Amino acid sequence: MNTIYSHKSIRKFKTTELCKEQIEKMVEAAVRGSNTGNMQLYSIVLTTDKETREQLAPCHFNQPCAKSAPLVATFCADINRFSLWCKERGAEPCYDNFSWFVTATIDTTIAAQNFALEAEEQGLGICYLGTTTYNAKEIASILELPKGVIPITTIVVGEPDESPELTERLPIEAVAHWQKYRDYSSDDINTLWKEKEELEFTKRLIEENGTENLAEIFTTKRYKKEDNLYFSTKLFNSLKEMGFFNNEE
Amino acid sequence: MNTIYSHKSIRKFKTTELCKEQIEKMVEAAVRGSNTGNMQLYSIVLTTDKETREQLAPCHFNQPCAKSAPLVATFCADINRFSLWCKERGAEPCYDNFSWFVTATIDTTIAAQNFALEAEEQGLGICYLGTTTYNAKEIASILELPKGVIPITTIVVGEPDESPELTERLPIEAVAHWQKYRDYSSDDINTLWKEKEELEFTKRLIEENGTENLAEIFTTKRYKKEDNLYFSTKLFNSLKEMGFFNNEE
Repeated sequence: MNTIYSHKSIRKFKTTELCKEQIEKMVEAAVRGSNTGNMQLYSIVLTTDKETREQLAPCHFNQPCAKSAPLVATFCADINRFSLWCKERGAEPCYDNFSWFVTATIDTTIAAQNFALEAEEQGLGICYLGTTTYNAKEIASILELPKGVIPITTIVVGEPDESPELTERLPIEAVAHWQKYRDYSSDDINTLWKEKEELEFTKRLIEENGTENLAEIFTTKRYKKEDNLYFSTKLFNSLKEMGFFNNEE
Repeated sequence: MNTIYSHKSIRKFKTTELCKEQIEKMVEAAVRGSNTGNMQLYSIVLTTDKETREQLAPCHFNQPCAKSAPLVATFCADINRFSLWCKERGAEPCYDNFSWFVTATIDTTIAAQNFALEAEEQGLGICYLGTTTYNAKEIASILELPKGVIPITTIVVGEPDESPELTERLPIEAVAHWQKYRDYSSDDINTLWKEKEELEFTKRLIEENGTENLAEIFTTKRYKKEDNLYFSTKLFNSLKEMGFFNNEE
């Protein structure tokens, strides 16, 4: 289980291809994860061919890791397969709604994390691509996803060609609440972020970005209001188009 | 990593309490997971006291495991802490929208799965409670979650008092698609579900439920249309009330 504690996102890969058996072992790990009613409401699209990977790259804003990794695994919430089975058996499925979007998203992510850990256990490097939900519709079109299948997250995998340091985290008191939630005072916030804000790495980031502080890098550069609102509307529309929001009778 | 492959949901626990160090180790595993921009948009509420656990039990439909497990860990998507930090630093946060709900849900689930695996590595048993999103609002009220914090999933943990068999899964070809998605023919569906449908366990379930087949157990008993639509509307309203759907300017 050292694998969990030594996780670092890898963004630079060697060109070495992965073999089918390696990848299938990751899928086996993925399906062992807990899932609602054992319905397995997910699909994993394993893209290794260069042409399709190149088509996908712009959906991930051409991040170098999306281009260079030999495996791009797109994890999708999938009510299509289960619904087809129901219909084949004369049962009437009704999973094309918001509650099942969230449930399938959770089960898909559990599968993804098992997949990631198995890859790391094999000595490979991985990186999650959060861009997946920004461009769910475009990815769906490239991967030929039918209605009822929506991309949730992507993991790129390959032989690491870098060895970054472990990334710091807030102290665990920041995220752990005993019994009930206790909200944060101004002092709590200062204490919990102190170490992160005093890192040399943080100071360098602030200088490079020309902002007053670390928080402003997030709100004015990395994840800006206008982008957040744009992608929220886009993703919500994708939900409807892809058949995950037929909430009305 | 055998932990991943030997996972079985445990629903019967011994009364043995867990010690703080054991639980903190699970939180450490949780925070090591990948997360968007290292923003750590999640909180884990660790409920061990009997009174609060008893308050939570009805939200999980009084499942025996929700009542008997010595630890009920509620995993919440949390934009509150990060937004407070931004405001303290004079930056204007804008994460109270749908795109960040989905992003935080994914990051929360990655943390949850690491937590679950660390618990299992310690020889403990776990079970995910999918009921969490059904009653997000009621859970939020009991755990005193502020706006910007929404329960996503719950893991109950304790010493196992049962030793169930490994649960079957569909063959991995069912969930793995090479290069692009290939949709399922009627024959594919029959082949992929054959083993599951022929299990003695399945036959017993069908008899107990008095249905024609396994699919009907899902559509007419376990996850019925009217419930799915009811909980979809309820959860979507919770999103708005809890500050995750301010998509408009």
